[in-house]
Amino acid sequence: MAAKALAEVFERLRLPGIVGEILAGVLIGPQVLHWLEPNAVLSAFSDLGLIFLLFRIGLEVKPSSLKRVGGTALAVAICGVIVPFAMGWGILTAWRAPPIEALFMGVSMVATSVGITAEVLKRMGVLSLRSSRIILAAAVFDDILGLLALSVASSVARGGLNIAGIALTAVLAVGFTAIVANWGSRLMQRFVPRIHPNLNIPEKEFAIAMAVLFGLSVLAVWAGIAAITGAFLAGMAMSETVEKRVHDLTAGVTEVFLPFFLAGIGMHLDLITFRKRETLLLTGAIVLAAIVSKLIGCGLGALRLGRREALQVGTGMIPRGEVGMVVAQMGAGFGVISQPVYGVIVAMSVITTLVAPWILSYSFRGARRN
Amino acid sequence: MAAKALAEVFERLRLPGIVGEILAGVLIGPQVLHWLEPNAVLSAFSDLGLIFLLFRIGLEVKPSSLKRVGGTALAVAICGVIVPFAMGWGILTAWRAPPIEALFMGVSMVATSVGITAEVLKRMGVLSLRSSRIILAAAVFDDILGLLALSVASSVARGGLNIAGIALTAVLAVGFTAIVANWGSRLMQRFVPRIHPNLNIPEKEFAIAMAVLFGLSVLAVWAGIAAITGAFLAGMAMSETVEKRVHDLTAGVTEVFLPFFLAGIGMHLDLITFRKRETLLLTGAIVLAAIVSKLIGCGLGALRLGRREALQVGTGMIPRGEVGMVVAQMGAGFGVISQPVYGVIVAMSVITTLVAPWILSYSFRGARRN
Repeated sequence: MAAKALAEVFERLRLPGIVGEILAGVLIGPQVLHWLEPNAVLSAFSDLGLIFLLFRIGLEVKPSSLKRVGGTALAVAICGVIVPFAMGWGILTAWRAPPIEALFMGVSMVATSVGITAEVLKRMGVLSLRSSRIILAAAVFDDILGLLALSVASSVARGGLNIAGIALTAVLAVGFTAIVANWGSRLMQRFVPRIHPNLNIPEKEFAIAMAVLFGLSVLAVWAGIAAITGAFLAGMAMSETVEKRVHDLTAGVTEVFLPFFLAGIGMHLDLITFRKRETLLLTGAIVLAAIVSKLIGCGLGALRLGRREALQVGTGMIPRGEVGMVVAQMGAGFGVISQPVYGVIVAMSVITTLVAPWILSYSFRGARRN
Repeated sequence: MAAKALAEVFERLRLPGIVGEILAGVLIGPQVLHWLEPNAVLSAFSDLGLIFLLFRIGLEVKPSSLKRVGGTALAVAICGVIVPFAMGWGILTAWRAPPIEALFMGVSMVATSVGITAEVLKRMGVLSLRSSRIILAAAVFDDILGLLALSVASSVARGGLNIAGIALTAVLAVGFTAIVANWGSRLMQRFVPRIHPNLNIPEKEFAIAMAVLFGLSVLAVWAGIAAITGAFLAGMAMSETVEKRVHDLTAGVTEVFLPFFLAGIGMHLDLITFRKRETLLLTGAIVLAAIVSKLIGCGLGALRLGRREALQVGTGMIPRGEVGMVVAQMGAGFGVISQPVYGVIVAMSVITTLVAPWILSYSFRGARRN
């Protein structure tokens, strides 16, 4: 209710409602009103919201339309990993942090959280634009590259580079993604029409969709990539098979749980990070670098489409959301990042997510609606 | 997935699919396969499933149609409380249990869990029958009477009858229910059309519905009654206001989370209860009494409608589900019920819930479908 109320206030002020939902988390969370703290149930609700959002986005994307932009998306993802990593690593090294801490900061700036972007693009009705499709495809590559960067960093933090382990991670992640993206849709088109008429349970189509969604999400986690990437691939695999009823039922779950994700992001912001002058300065530098580095990196990768689309793609890759926070938590778990740097990474994740809807609505202004 | 798979198997064997979903919980739970144990997240999912189910049932019921059967429903609820209580108390007293333990056993047999019945009636398409409406209305009264019985028992367990406290509980519960049931729909019809056009957020109608649902569920808990009674009243209050889109989105959440409730019921069954001969005999007697007492009690209350409808109403009130388990947990919390009796109450709750779909499909066989 808090998320929806603040979204309404923001919409009335002609500001992005999604920012209101995130700020609702700051407001009711442990920083201001202390009504709620992050806990296991809220985090499960948040995960579900995100999984259903990405599934829903996947349902609206035909695999063929992503494959056509695959080359550009790969270039966007690669440049969008190198530039942010270099800037994060460089700033922390200049700040005289230990090399391993600089490494984790670089990694935390690599991975894009595509959820926010997808939701904004969906609300603006521009999901079918070429730049939107490039963002979605690049986010899949980005997730794999981010996973590999995190594997390398974890391996170093554990005291040595386990090349064989990292190679296995890469093979599993790439293999799973390639198989589902390439053959998922064809398999579904072949098997769903056979299974479906033979089922007797009510809402059987939705039951099949949920089995595919949760099945691929779990497989994705086993393959080392994010559950939401599995959810997105599941949606895409089913995009040519499912009927309107599945879209409607999926929308219900998304509507109920997405606010838990958005407000949950806000709830993690720790204002104490901004009290010390030195940490505040570092946060400012890192946030600026996080925004600029994705704009430059991803923009470069998409430059051959023209400056306007390159800018759109770059802005779409800015939010770090929950992915940056996971890196911070892993680094803290290994004991290789200090408390201030942990706070800076979380602040960077939240703030890049908060500003993204604004920047996106600017860069996509006047774009053709679908 | 386990729930849906077993539901499919049961449907193929021409057995109630809902029983398959409950047994899936026994199968994957701590009794057989140990894949899952009850935990906070599963229990939150289960609560959500139940809340959305009752909200959805409420949406299909007009308050006026319940008021017409109010008198009969009250008689059904009162007889359906007295007979089960007397039988539960009597059996435990004959078993030479301490009076306070006999009291809790009686109370645990009082409260009906209407969720299962509602789902079965909905699937059979007989929700609009007079006997179905009597069951739904009687379940609301039953919840209040059960609350009062539990207040009395808790008060005694704490060492004295707190008359003032119980009176306050009664006033709050009756007041909340009466106000929402009587004026809820009229208030919604007056205010929703005014608020709705002034909102700017997407899916605003669903957002309003969710605010009413969660708001009334929380208020119901504050007033001492079950969240699901609040959810049912919320649905009923909105039954004349909402559009199809809200029905569809609500259906999605129900479909995803109801299996967690059904399988969750099964997951609580502890087969150790059936190992000792004495406990097994007691379980048999209590389960039989739990079924027969509701049939007789509720049937008596509805007898003036004829034997067929009286039987339908009686069968609808048999499942004790999660409500019986709550009483067992409270009794255990006060330290007034022994481990075997705890197991018996849980077994009674699960088994009455398991047999209900069978008995219901028998008693409603050939009923006109809506």
